[in-house]
Amino acid sequence: MQDNGIRVGRVALEVFCQRVFETLALTKADAAMAASVLVTADARGIPSHGVARLPRYVHGLEIGLMRPNAELEVLRETPTSVLVDAHGGVGAPASVRTMKQVIAKAKLSGAAFGSVRDSNHFGIAGYYAMMALDEDMIGVAMTNTAALSVPTFGREPMVGTNPIAFAAPAAKEGAFVLDMATTVVTRGKVEVYDRAEKPMPEGWAVDAKGRPGTDPAEILHNLTYQVGGGILPLGGLGELLGGHKGFGLSVMVDILCGVLSASAFGPGISDEPGSSARVSHFFAALQIASFRDPVAFRQDMDRMLNDLRNSPPAEGATRVIFAGLKELESEAMCEQRGVPLTRKVYDQLVEVGSARGVTLPSAV
Amino acid sequence: MQDNGIRVGRVALEVFCQRVFETLALTKADAAMAASVLVTADARGIPSHGVARLPRYVHGLEIGLMRPNAELEVLRETPTSVLVDAHGGVGAPASVRTMKQVIAKAKLSGAAFGSVRDSNHFGIAGYYAMMALDEDMIGVAMTNTAALSVPTFGREPMVGTNPIAFAAPAAKEGAFVLDMATTVVTRGKVEVYDRAEKPMPEGWAVDAKGRPGTDPAEILHNLTYQVGGGILPLGGLGELLGGHKGFGLSVMVDILCGVLSASAFGPGISDEPGSSARVSHFFAALQIASFRDPVAFRQDMDRMLNDLRNSPPAEGATRVIFAGLKELESEAMCEQRGVPLTRKVYDQLVEVGSARGVTLPSAV
Repeated sequence: MQDNGIRVGRVALEVFCQRVFETLALTKADAAMAASVLVTADARGIPSHGVARLPRYVHGLEIGLMRPNAELEVLRETPTSVLVDAHGGVGAPASVRTMKQVIAKAKLSGAAFGSVRDSNHFGIAGYYAMMALDEDMIGVAMTNTAALSVPTFGREPMVGTNPIAFAAPAAKEGAFVLDMATTVVTRGKVEVYDRAEKPMPEGWAVDAKGRPGTDPAEILHNLTYQVGGGILPLGGLGELLGGHKGFGLSVMVDILCGVLSASAFGPGISDEPGSSARVSHFFAALQIASFRDPVAFRQDMDRMLNDLRNSPPAEGATRVIFAGLKELESEAMCEQRGVPLTRKVYDQLVEVGSARGVTLPSAV
Repeated sequence: MQDNGIRVGRVALEVFCQRVFETLALTKADAAMAASVLVTADARGIPSHGVARLPRYVHGLEIGLMRPNAELEVLRETPTSVLVDAHGGVGAPASVRTMKQVIAKAKLSGAAFGSVRDSNHFGIAGYYAMMALDEDMIGVAMTNTAALSVPTFGREPMVGTNPIAFAAPAAKEGAFVLDMATTVVTRGKVEVYDRAEKPMPEGWAVDAKGRPGTDPAEILHNLTYQVGGGILPLGGLGELLGGHKGFGLSVMVDILCGVLSASAFGPGISDEPGSSARVSHFFAALQIASFRDPVAFRQDMDRMLNDLRNSPPAEGATRVIFAGLKELESEAMCEQRGVPLTRKVYDQLVEVGSARGVTLPSAV
C-alpha cells in the first residue's frame, strides 16, 4: 500500500523533520530526537506513527498544545528509579532522555525504571525499548493514551490503546522486539477501513450500546462525540476469546503509566485542544549480566528466533513470524531503497516544509 | 459447576494438603507453602490449578519427577536480582522463597528481579505477584510451560501457555490482580470441552496442518502425540484479531523465564516422565514509594477500580469486570462457606489421603 514509488532517503527525511522542529523552537538535540522517533516508525513499517504525524505535531506546537521548551523536571529519584514531569512538552525527547537515565541507572544498579508524567504522544513505544539493546539490556516501554477502548462487558471507553514494548537482544538474528497495542487494533486501523468505506471484521469494536459493531464511520463518530462504544481489548468481546486478558493488560499499562506517576488515567486523559494530552509513559531496563553472560544470552536468543523462523508454516501460510522480524526486514529495505511515503503524506510534508522554509528532499 | 454442595473449610483443606506433602518428605515449611498455593487457587475460583492437582503432585513426588528435598542454589546474586536453581524441586516452595528474596531486595534497592531455573509446576502465577501487595509494592510473576501453542502462521507448538501475573495494591477496593495465560485458553479448558464432548469455539486451536480446529479430542490427541497443531495465542489465528500480539507475549515470557535463566525454552521444555518439567519462572517487585506515596497510590487505585466497577454494562451484560474482582468475591464466599470441590476431586483427595494416612476433613 505504501510502496507506490515515492521513497525518500532515511537520513535526508530525518534531517528534514529535524529542521522543521527547529523552526518551532525545539533545541537542535530535541528536534533530532523527535525526528529520529518519527522516521524510525516509517522505516520499521509502522507509518501510522511516522512522519504522517508531522503536520499534527507542527499544529500542536503552533497552538501551544505541546510546549517546545518545557523543562524536564525530576520529581523523585532513587538508584533504581526516576520520575520525570514533562510539563506538557514533546513526548519523544522527554522519553529518549528518560530512557537514557533509566539505562544509566540500570548500568549501576542492575535494573531501573522511569516514569514520565504530563507528556504528549511519544511515537512508537518500541523505539525506547530498543535503546536498551546495545547496552546488553532488556528494555520495556509503555504509554497510556486517550480512552478509546471499552472494558470487558462494558460500553464506554475506559482505557486507551495502551501499548507495551519489550525488546531483547540477539546476536545474528537481530532482536526480539514486541511493540503492541493492548487493544485488538488501534484507532488508525479503524480509520483505514473508514477511508476505504469497508465494514470492519467482527471482534474489533462495539457500538454505543456495547454490541458488536463493524461500521467504522459509526465507531469513529461515537468516539469523537463520546456517546459510548469503542475499540475492543485484545481478545475481543466478553471472555470467550480472552477479551478480559487484553483489557487487563490495558489497565496494567495505565497503572504503571498513569497511577504510578500520579498523573491522569483512564477517561481522565484528554486530547482536547488547549491542554496537553496529559499522557504518561513507563520505562524499564534490566541488565542481562545480572542473570547470565550476555553473549550466551544472545546466542540462546539466536537459537530461539531461528527455531521460530524455521518452524513449519500452517497450510496456506508462507512462513512463521515473530515480533520484530518484519520490522527488521523493512528497515533493511529502507536502508537500500529509502523510506516509503504515500503521495498524500509526501505532499503534506512538502506543504508543512514550505510554510516553514524547509525543503523536503526529492524522492530517490 | 463447582458449586454442587461439597465445601471444605479453607484452613482444614490447607492442613490436609500440608500433611500429605509432609508424608512425601517435604519439610513442614515447604509443605505449608505448596498447600497454600494450591488451596488459594481453589479459593480464588481457579480450580484447574487447585487441589485437583494434588494426586499429580503426589505421583510426581513418588516417582521422583519432583525432588522433595532439592536444595535451592543461588547461582548469581546482585542487590537487584537473584538467580536460583531449583534442581527439579517442587515449584511452589521454590517460588515463594525466591519471591520473598525479591521483595527483600526491592525493599533495599527499590526494585528487584528473581528467576528460578529447573523447576516444576508452580500453581497460580497470581499467588507470587500478590505477595508484593502488603509490602506496598507492585508484583509480577511469570512461568514458561511445556509447548502447547502454535506461532502466528505456524502449525507446531513452539511456546507454552506462559502466564503473566501482575498485582497492584488498592485500599478499599482490594487489589488489581491480573493472572492470565498468554494463549486464548489453557489446556484445561480444552479438556473441559473434551469431557463434555462439545465442539470448541472457533479461534481457540488449530489442527495438525495449522487450520482452525474445534474438535477438543483431536487437539488433545495431537498435542499428546506431537503431530502438530495446538492452542492459539491470545488474539487467535493469524494477525486479523491480534494473534501475533498474544504470540509475542508468550515469547516474551519464555525469554524472561527460560532464556534469561539459561534454562530450557520453547519446545525444549518437556513433561516426560523421568525428568522434571524443567520449567522456569520470573518474578519482579517494584516499590511504589520510589515514585509516589503508597497511600495516595492506593487511593488512586480505588478511584480507578471504582470507576471501572461503575462503568455502564453493555446491552445484555450485568456488570463490567476487571482483573481480580471475581477472584476476590470468590475468596470472600469461601471464607464464609468453605472451598467448593467437585465430588470427583473430593473422592480423589480422600483416596490420596487414605493411602498416606491423612484424613480429609468432612464437608462443611
